[in-house]
Amino acid sequence: MGQTLTEKILDDHLVEGELTPGEEIGIDIDQTLTQDTTGTMVWLQFEALGLEDVQTELAAQYCDHQTYQFDFKNTDDHRFLRSAAGTFGAHFSRPGNGICHNVHKENFAAPGKTLLGSDSHTPTPGGLGQLAIGAGGLDIAVAMGGGPYYVEMPEVVNVRLEGELEGWASAKDVILEMLRRLSVKGGVGKVFEYTGPGVESLTVPERTTITNMGTELGATSSIFPTDEQTKDYLERVGRPEDFEKLEPDADAEYADEIVVDLSELEPLIAKPSMPDNVVPVREVEGERVEQVMIGSCTNGSYEDILPGAKMLKGREVAKHTEMIVAPASKQSAEILARQGWTAELMAAGVNFSEATCGACIGIGHVPASDSVSLRTFNRNFEGRSGIEDDSVYLCSPEVATAAAIKGEIVDPRDLAEELGDLESPGIELPDEYDGSDADLIDPNESIDDELIKGPNIGDVPLKDPLGDTVGGESILKMDDNITTDHIIPATADILMYRSNIEKLSEFTLSRVDDTFADRALEADGGTLVAGENYGQGSSREHAALCPMYLGIEAVFAQSFARIHRANLFNFGIVPLTIDDDTYEQIEQGDDITVVDDVGAGVRNGEEQFTCRVNDDWEFTAQLHASERERDILAAGGKLSWTKEQATGDSGSGATPADD
Amino acid sequence: MGQTLTEKILDDHLVEGELTPGEEIGIDIDQTLTQDTTGTMVWLQFEALGLEDVQTELAAQYCDHQTYQFDFKNTDDHRFLRSAAGTFGAHFSRPGNGICHNVHKENFAAPGKTLLGSDSHTPTPGGLGQLAIGAGGLDIAVAMGGGPYYVEMPEVVNVRLEGELEGWASAKDVILEMLRRLSVKGGVGKVFEYTGPGVESLTVPERTTITNMGTELGATSSIFPTDEQTKDYLERVGRPEDFEKLEPDADAEYADEIVVDLSELEPLIAKPSMPDNVVPVREVEGERVEQVMIGSCTNGSYEDILPGAKMLKGREVAKHTEMIVAPASKQSAEILARQGWTAELMAAGVNFSEATCGACIGIGHVPASDSVSLRTFNRNFEGRSGIEDDSVYLCSPEVATAAAIKGEIVDPRDLAEELGDLESPGIELPDEYDGSDADLIDPNESIDDELIKGPNIGDVPLKDPLGDTVGGESILKMDDNITTDHIIPATADILMYRSNIEKLSEFTLSRVDDTFADRALEADGGTLVAGENYGQGSSREHAALCPMYLGIEAVFAQSFARIHRANLFNFGIVPLTIDDDTYEQIEQGDDITVVDDVGAGVRNGEEQFTCRVNDDWEFTAQLHASERERDILAAGGKLSWTKEQATGDSGSGATPADD
Repeated sequence: MGQTLTEKILDDHLVEGELTPGEEIGIDIDQTLTQDTTGTMVWLQFEALGLEDVQTELAAQYCDHQTYQFDFKNTDDHRFLRSAAGTFGAHFSRPGNGICHNVHKENFAAPGKTLLGSDSHTPTPGGLGQLAIGAGGLDIAVAMGGGPYYVEMPEVVNVRLEGELEGWASAKDVILEMLRRLSVKGGVGKVFEYTGPGVESLTVPERTTITNMGTELGATSSIFPTDEQTKDYLERVGRPEDFEKLEPDADAEYADEIVVDLSELEPLIAKPSMPDNVVPVREVEGERVEQVMIGSCTNGSYEDILPGAKMLKGREVAKHTEMIVAPASKQSAEILARQGWTAELMAAGVNFSEATCGACIGIGHVPASDSVSLRTFNRNFEGRSGIEDDSVYLCSPEVATAAAIKGEIVDPRDLAEELGDLESPGIELPDEYDGSDADLIDPNESIDDELIKGPNIGDVPLKDPLGDTVGGESILKMDDNITTDHIIPATADILMYRSNIEKLSEFTLSRVDDTFADRALEADGGTLVAGENYGQGSSREHAALCPMYLGIEAVFAQSFARIHRANLFNFGIVPLTIDDDTYEQIEQGDDITVVDDVGAGVRNGEEQFTCRVNDDWEFTAQLHASERERDILAAGGKLSWTKEQATGDSGSGATPADD
Repeated sequence: MGQTLTEKILDDHLVEGELTPGEEIGIDIDQTLTQDTTGTMVWLQFEALGLEDVQTELAAQYCDHQTYQFDFKNTDDHRFLRSAAGTFGAHFSRPGNGICHNVHKENFAAPGKTLLGSDSHTPTPGGLGQLAIGAGGLDIAVAMGGGPYYVEMPEVVNVRLEGELEGWASAKDVILEMLRRLSVKGGVGKVFEYTGPGVESLTVPERTTITNMGTELGATSSIFPTDEQTKDYLERVGRPEDFEKLEPDADAEYADEIVVDLSELEPLIAKPSMPDNVVPVREVEGERVEQVMIGSCTNGSYEDILPGAKMLKGREVAKHTEMIVAPASKQSAEILARQGWTAELMAAGVNFSEATCGACIGIGHVPASDSVSLRTFNRNFEGRSGIEDDSVYLCSPEVATAAAIKGEIVDPRDLAEELGDLESPGIELPDEYDGSDADLIDPNESIDDELIKGPNIGDVPLKDPLGDTVGGESILKMDDNITTDHIIPATADILMYRSNIEKLSEFTLSRVDDTFADRALEADGGTLVAGENYGQGSSREHAALCPMYLGIEAVFAQSFARIHRANLFNFGIVPLTIDDDTYEQIEQGDDITVVDDVGAGVRNGEEQFTCRVNDDWEFTAQLHASERERDILAAGGKLSWTKEQATGDSGSGATPADD
């Protein structure tokens, strides 16, 4: 049986498991990508690994989320990230140099490579045959440390493209059509692999618009084969040597097939407030528009701004409409400026913003009350723009620009008929992506050789390997269904300390008992006791990291939520299951000690551990863990485990390739 | 005796008083300027006047402070301002079109005209012979309503310029030298009039850098004569018809004379954290610099950015230094883009920001902790950049750019010697300021004919003319030294409601008694009783406006602070002075009625009013007021009074010209 392109790349990188959908596999990572809101913790974790250099072929650190630097903490974070990249050997993209996905696409993305990024739109370079997956911060740190990435083998779905885009239909309409058909849940556990005769008509920038927004389908990733278009693009960006011909086998088997006839697409738009709320633009024509924005990682590159510039040349934005262009990369901005398009756009009344994620994440250009904003972005979740009850529509740059000209939503076909001299601009790539790389600092040219930490940037604590004794005072006894929001609240006033575990840990479990953190520190650590479903909610790793920082060695609970349980392993806290009677019997303040040699037991596969309470009575607790999880726990957490792997100090006796 | 230029312009516009320093004069206003943080209240007050149109020759509304629109309240404010400008006949400059002073200079500023603006750097167009003064919001509203502006006649000081700037010295160094000599208090109550042979060597943009930053001397205004340079500038901006030859009489007498020899100036820099902390750049050479910013109303125009662009062509910003250019006007940005300079700056590693006040007021690009930021701005007060204990230096664009190249503070002369091929770029004006005016909406082309108010924009209450009875329950009895911060706290969480008097008034006197606002509303108004020095502190007009909104008719106090007393007149609240015994005798909750016919008494110049308490006992209160103040009070406040003047409904029997 032949392989899909996804299977081929995974096979090439497989270090553990088999390519059976639903099974966990471990893969080697070639490249990593981090941005500024997730990056600080990643680098602090990497620092804690104690390695001298990044172990992947390439790591790149971008600053794109908080580039306006409204607070010294943002600016300090950027400086820290620059110093971390320089110290550990990653590329550093300065604030203002653009959005990670777009800068990565232009500078580093390569067919056949694996990319792991701490941002949900990491799959963007799938448009040029790279297998790119978004993940949590610690996964990135571990990958940079040389560890494999573990993920459930996804189903691979064939999206067969037929025909060619015509008239005013664009790549954005391809992915909007996918969302219309499949909904925002339609891609969960899947990789969408684009095939068919329609592929060759799409340039790489068009393909990356589609793969980028595959994230909104919930997909693990999206990918195109490589061909003359890919070769052409890599030549224009000055990296022809990165080209590699990649395609699925002719007899590859897919889990499912979807057919999209490009020639039948018309301009589409996602109405408020969900990316799959898609209708033809003509259905909502006439809606007054107060704001139009071209930008974001989906449609903010040169190729996305140019159509709007061509449409606006010699025209003006409607008087009641504000139009903002936020280039997705400074290279795009520089080429547009050099070619004169920036001046044309400004002359038309466009406000040029910095190259940043900006308004897409509600930072700046918040719409006015009770007003419509048309955006070329990828998400229009209610309130994401910065105002509750917003009315954000998602569309192509052509549809956005048409609305800016008319001041209301209009199908560009109808506007063209009305104006008489408006032509579909089509897609056009620059002959050469010849923007400066002054803002992309190569590890070799960095002047930084030590970390620069502002007062809000703390350390990541690293745990020692699991010893023979585990236990301590049960500092808090909790009820059922404690969430990660109980453990570490996600409000802005608390999460602003995301880079500062010492400070953040002061808020640990404060919603349950605001004396907890103080008592835990005073007691020099101890244990937690909880009922059913402990740690439900988000994947927030701080919910394990902060208790670990406070010295918590074990959690005794009736049951654990899946992701939090994994995080407890990752941060070296022993998750032990107890029965109902035991839960009832333990009281807060009891001294609980695991009697057996825990370190040895965990390593040897023991599932039951005897525990003594106040030297008074005993109970049996269960440890349910895979071999890999036991290794991680024994090492003192995933960071320590990864460190062992990298330095060969294989205390657990296991390597990631054979456990 | 001959006249100074300042006296000539004032004489031309005088409607009341004599040009004797220290005496109050009333002058006609030709042009007004408002920006977005002060503008909403101005337009709400103008709306309350009930006039159909702005009465000045020209009014212009700019959006420059909150243009990043971090919150729907900002965006709503901008939309409201657009609608107000359209409705009442003002020019509207869209967010992103630039800083008020620079856009005004390029489009409207004219020799010999008076300009009143609700921003402290309003004196900028003094560089082309306009007499421009900053003032509070209500003064602008009244001026737009056709009323005169009252100000103490300033002393006029002659700043005699000799020689010409040489080498790397720039216009910024002229004003830095003034600050070095005179300090930030050196200009209080003064207009600086620049004269002498050195004037003709300075272009208008250089002159406006000097007049703009005259504000940091504390000056009422600064002004240059007009000449060939002025004519040349007005031709380049496309308004040759606005030129008028203006100069002081040869025998004009000045209060003082200061001589500055331009040829002796060298690159100067204001060290942290005061604009007058000025030293030669060479004194602080070698200081590591992490951030460089070119922008602001002082040095953010085409002529200010171009020198930096020339210096950076073919060079790069130091790797550890971030350089941000924020054009002061979009016209400047467009011309730079059209000429290719924007691409050159981007290629050098510069991050281009929107045309906004931005970082100058701590919005964005906050420096990193414990780091040096060099800025071409006008203020470096501690913490203004957005981080406490900041280290912000003020300098010319040339000095800033030199630091960006070297990564540390360096005198450009020394950098030029080091590099060998760096030449002083000098000053260069564009042949034609041919940027688009798409973002400057003429009143005639506005589509707005009614006000658009978001949920945070309220109304300004307008009081009826003073009737025959005044009084009511004494809702609050206060001690001595109540400040305007007691009356309306200035914290951000409260002042965010600055456009919403109904909401803001809920906080009135909350620091004294947090039940006050509710009780005042329940009682449907009443009176206040206070000890000595009531209303000390800032000039905040909300401290009178909010009590007025809550129905306060009179304040009985032992004494009043000067500015707040004026504000009470302005908002129609009767300020009555009581003696110590009376203060002691009145109790909170007493019902106090002025027995005499108050309206008639105020109009007729009565100074004593009999008041009855609880129909039980009586006291005598004093009204100290000028004729103009009595007219304003009788009309129900300055807004109502202005409205009367404009509509000819002269209930007070007085006109501003003859009272």
